[in-house]
Amino acid sequence: MDISDMVQSAVDEHEFDSGLLTLWCVHTGASFLGQANADDDVIADINAFFEDLLPQKAGKYRHKPDHLDNAPSHLRALLTQTQVSIPVENERLPLGKVQSLYLFEHREAPKIRRIRCHFIGN
Amino acid sequence: MDISDMVQSAVDEHEFDSGLLTLWCVHTGASFLGQANADDDVIADINAFFEDLLPQKAGKYRHKPDHLDNAPSHLRALLTQTQVSIPVENERLPLGKVQSLYLFEHREAPKIRRIRCHFIGN
Amino acid sequence: MDISDMVQSAVDEHEFDSGLLTLWCVHTGASFLGQANADDDVIADINAFFEDLLPQKAGKYRHKPDHLDNAPSHLRALLTQTQVSIPVENERLPLGKVQSLYLFEHREAPKIRRIRCHFIGN
Repeated sequence: MDISDMVQSAVDEHEFDSGLLTLWCVHTGASFLGQANADDDVIADINAFFEDLLPQKAGKYRHKPDHLDNAPSHLRALLTQTQVSIPVENERLPLGKVQSLYLFEHREAPKIRRIRCHFIGN
Repeated sequence: MDISDMVQSAVDEHEFDSGLLTLWCVHTGASFLGQANADDDVIADINAFFEDLLPQKAGKYRHKPDHLDNAPSHLRALLTQTQVSIPVENERLPLGKVQSLYLFEHREAPKIRRIRCHFIGN
Repeated sequence: MDISDMVQSAVDEHEFDSGLLTLWCVHTGASFLGQANADDDVIADINAFFEDLLPQKAGKYRHKPDHLDNAPSHLRALLTQTQVSIPVENERLPLGKVQSLYLFEHREAPKIRRIRCHFIGN
């Protein structure tokens, strides 16, 4: 899920001019990515890579939660980022032309995810 | 090693109320994880995953240090995080209900590890 | 590319004494590493690991850009870090004795890369 606009909206709403914005994901089954947004196939490749490296397969993991997608989701989160800090300048996130900030859901079923936002600056 | 309590103790001791706490690991064979703490099998799965992906095996790596666990430890550190920044609010770390902060030792023998802590805020 | 000296020069030039320095890579095909600098074979091992895990091979990825190294570069960036925040103390980066900060180029051809630097402190 591309959250760039949502994060930019928070910057606009609070009139953050320049400073450091930190996002913290309070979940262990979702995490942040700074990634290319020019082509949906990039996201498809990410999903295929993770399914290949850390498949949702019964018997593969020692951790046996209720849902099969739980154990690999921890490992997928570990390889990405629980936290990201983004410099804000002139009320803008410094994202590259084809760069977006994503929240990557590692579980299969849709979930409500909470992100803590912290800003320090003007 | 779950360092959540140790980090919270540092917040308490210095009476940090709200701000941004940054931890920097000055080693290249240990790194940070934000991970689930509900079940020790999660950590066992992490260890198994890394041993599978980056085994401690003679002849696998060009870097030939004194100890076999040194070369893969660099690569394991690279896939996790040398640094983590955590928003502090009302003197609390914003960890989720089953979320802990870990320092992940990638070497086999126990080592003394130093973490630089930086806080900015009130 | 070891950017430790370049980053330290920026700290010197702006006379940053103590605070938090954040680097943000505005590209999706390059990212940051905190890594060992004692032996060039460490970097060779990193390159071999990524080529093994995410090969530049026609037909492997759905994303079909002009250049074969583009699709795996996104995935390699994802496994490392788009952003890094480093505490500065007494005008020094807190790098360990054999620890350097690298900008890791995931594309094959040389490219000009821009890094946003943000400092908060004194």
